[in-house]
Amino acid sequence: MPPIKFSILKELGGRTAKLGRVGILETPHGVIETPAFVSVGTKATVKALTPEQIKDCGAQVVLANTYHLYLEPGDERVKKFGGLHKFMNWQGPLMTDSGGFQVFSLGAAYGKQISKIAKTPLLMLGEGKGVRSEEEIAGSLAKIGQDGVSFRSHHDGSLHYITPEKSIEIQHNLGADIIFAFDECTSPNEDYRYQEEALERTHRWAKRSLEFHKSKDNSKTQALFGIVQGGREKGLRKRSAEFMKSLDFEGFGIGGSFAKEDMETAVKWVNEILPKEKPRHLLGIGEPEDLFMGVENGVDLFDCVAPTRNGRGGTLYTSRGKINIRNAEFREDTGSVDGDCGCYTCKNFSRAYLCHLYRSHEMLGGTLGSIHNLYFIINLVKKMREAILDNSFTLFKIKFLSKYRN
Amino acid sequence: MPPIKFSILKELGGRTAKLGRVGILETPHGVIETPAFVSVGTKATVKALTPEQIKDCGAQVVLANTYHLYLEPGDERVKKFGGLHKFMNWQGPLMTDSGGFQVFSLGAAYGKQISKIAKTPLLMLGEGKGVRSEEEIAGSLAKIGQDGVSFRSHHDGSLHYITPEKSIEIQHNLGADIIFAFDECTSPNEDYRYQEEALERTHRWAKRSLEFHKSKDNSKTQALFGIVQGGREKGLRKRSAEFMKSLDFEGFGIGGSFAKEDMETAVKWVNEILPKEKPRHLLGIGEPEDLFMGVENGVDLFDCVAPTRNGRGGTLYTSRGKINIRNAEFREDTGSVDGDCGCYTCKNFSRAYLCHLYRSHEMLGGTLGSIHNLYFIINLVKKMREAILDNSFTLFKIKFLSKYRN
Repeated sequence: MPPIKFSILKELGGRTAKLGRVGILETPHGVIETPAFVSVGTKATVKALTPEQIKDCGAQVVLANTYHLYLEPGDERVKKFGGLHKFMNWQGPLMTDSGGFQVFSLGAAYGKQISKIAKTPLLMLGEGKGVRSEEEIAGSLAKIGQDGVSFRSHHDGSLHYITPEKSIEIQHNLGADIIFAFDECTSPNEDYRYQEEALERTHRWAKRSLEFHKSKDNSKTQALFGIVQGGREKGLRKRSAEFMKSLDFEGFGIGGSFAKEDMETAVKWVNEILPKEKPRHLLGIGEPEDLFMGVENGVDLFDCVAPTRNGRGGTLYTSRGKINIRNAEFREDTGSVDGDCGCYTCKNFSRAYLCHLYRSHEMLGGTLGSIHNLYFIINLVKKMREAILDNSFTLFKIKFLSKYRN
Repeated sequence: MPPIKFSILKELGGRTAKLGRVGILETPHGVIETPAFVSVGTKATVKALTPEQIKDCGAQVVLANTYHLYLEPGDERVKKFGGLHKFMNWQGPLMTDSGGFQVFSLGAAYGKQISKIAKTPLLMLGEGKGVRSEEEIAGSLAKIGQDGVSFRSHHDGSLHYITPEKSIEIQHNLGADIIFAFDECTSPNEDYRYQEEALERTHRWAKRSLEFHKSKDNSKTQALFGIVQGGREKGLRKRSAEFMKSLDFEGFGIGGSFAKEDMETAVKWVNEILPKEKPRHLLGIGEPEDLFMGVENGVDLFDCVAPTRNGRGGTLYTSRGKINIRNAEFREDTGSVDGDCGCYTCKNFSRAYLCHLYRSHEMLGGTLGSIHNLYFIINLVKKMREAILDNSFTLFKIKFLSKYRN
């Protein structure tokens, strides 16, 4: 029996010819109602939150980062503890990424500052994300070979070598319900030739990841997703989707450091090709506009550090757009962060109290802000799900975005 | 009707001739079973914890700091919000200190580093505490007059002037159930002459605090405690206890920057004089040995930042003494922080996971560590209470301390 089962309950379809759908994803640690936002728990903790608080935000599933956990505390240590579920005391579904993204972004950045050159026009994805500039790529400490990548730890500079097999072995040790094939996530600033080369590498690595995974008993309890890459190039994106489709993956990731304007077309190209009956995860995306785009284009799962990172920094989501809760205007504000929100923070505390906590550098501010943002984003995707079921998705989208962008 | 009611249920007494007792302190926001440890919520938040987590630690009462809240967010702003209970969403009993301690330690320290000279032999008390060295006293920016103290904010250097009346007014605006008279907390390094002068000032200020308080309606809902000072001098301590006893306070604080070896004698001198029927709060004390000393010498309430400050730093209490959870020896340790502990942290997480969180600078480490430490200390005082009721206090003390000091 395969480790996961995905069933589609309803499709957006109709006159809109949209790819969106509502599904149920069954995993060994419970059910995920899709589309769903996946909370990011980089280092085996959703920053600042206890497992109960994560659950109270409506979270169904948590994604941890292979690269970080491989370095600290070490995947073998986690295995000795009976896996990530036990280690971090999260009993629901878990995912781990392949580590590829961080090997290239964090590993490459060892020993020098990430240049800002290429950063501005790109979306910020993933934890500790830095998009490589050309300068960096030239001077990079991550060496890409046909077999894998050697890189230096961003902690202590120690040398490491990750192959597709090694990535899967680490993820087997961590023991998440859904794991990802090892891939190379390129910058959209790279030229076509590099994108194509990198894509071929990602495809070879996907095949090797899959073969290694299938040869192990863990494939009975852990599902492997392949990652579609190809940057902003239509031809490459389609080639990648066709290639991944041809392999026996149990679901797919859609990766890439996107320029915002390229994202929708890339997702559409890919999802028109990927087999309908398998789940799709758009990696590292979580802003409200992008979630609507993803859902209507057939994405089932999203993850992003934005809600918790923004939450710690005091940037809070509201139905009227984001606010910086530190601003002086909120010092006297007796209202909740968002009048329409039912989260723990909004039910119990005023904007003025949160403003005070952030201005006083109190940890509770980051906790309450993360709770609010995570609830807000998780609940937004949940409402999209309900809207598809109610045949009111487009109306909901227009109403939400016109208020949000107001 | 007075705002609080204190009833003694049982005394330690007997052959030991100890002053310890078990009581019930009724406040407008609920009952405190004494002896009890008071959680410190300096800036209207027990650092890193939600009100529910504070309660789950067994906390019955929280003490916030007048000096900090006066500066940020401002006591008048808190008043507009309906007081501290509403502002911070803590529905149980609340206390505020007088601000005197911080005016002298933090206010005086504005613009330069607190010297370490006098620190080592002294206990660390209170939030953000620094004991003044002679050097500092000489160069202090806090100016003590007969009427009050002018000082500069440690935030922004702005000038402020606090009189006894002002301290009480601020505490009326904050609205805690139990408030304290304005006092001067001297360093044990000061000479006798200065101690005597400061004590006379504290006495005059206590009287003025009381007169101002009694003239206001708030005295119907807020109880005022006078603070006994006098440093390490028997004569001064006794004089102070006699003076405070003569006034119509509803309870007493015992203040001072104690050298560890002076504390027991000072507490005994004072509590032999203070009226038995009123509650006594030993300010800023919270290490296990000192809690036993205080309880057997008739202290009913304690507060200290040590549990939460240690918790954030990774120093955790166990029945076999304190441990630094960051240490490499705990990386593989599947056991809970303390095998005898029933706190949320110990019930759900291993030492190895906590070690990982602290080493990875994850906020959840500070939260889980604070929960454990707060539970440990609150529960220790609760067990002392039960031991007095069971006639087993001395046995419990010997057993606990022999293991703890092991």
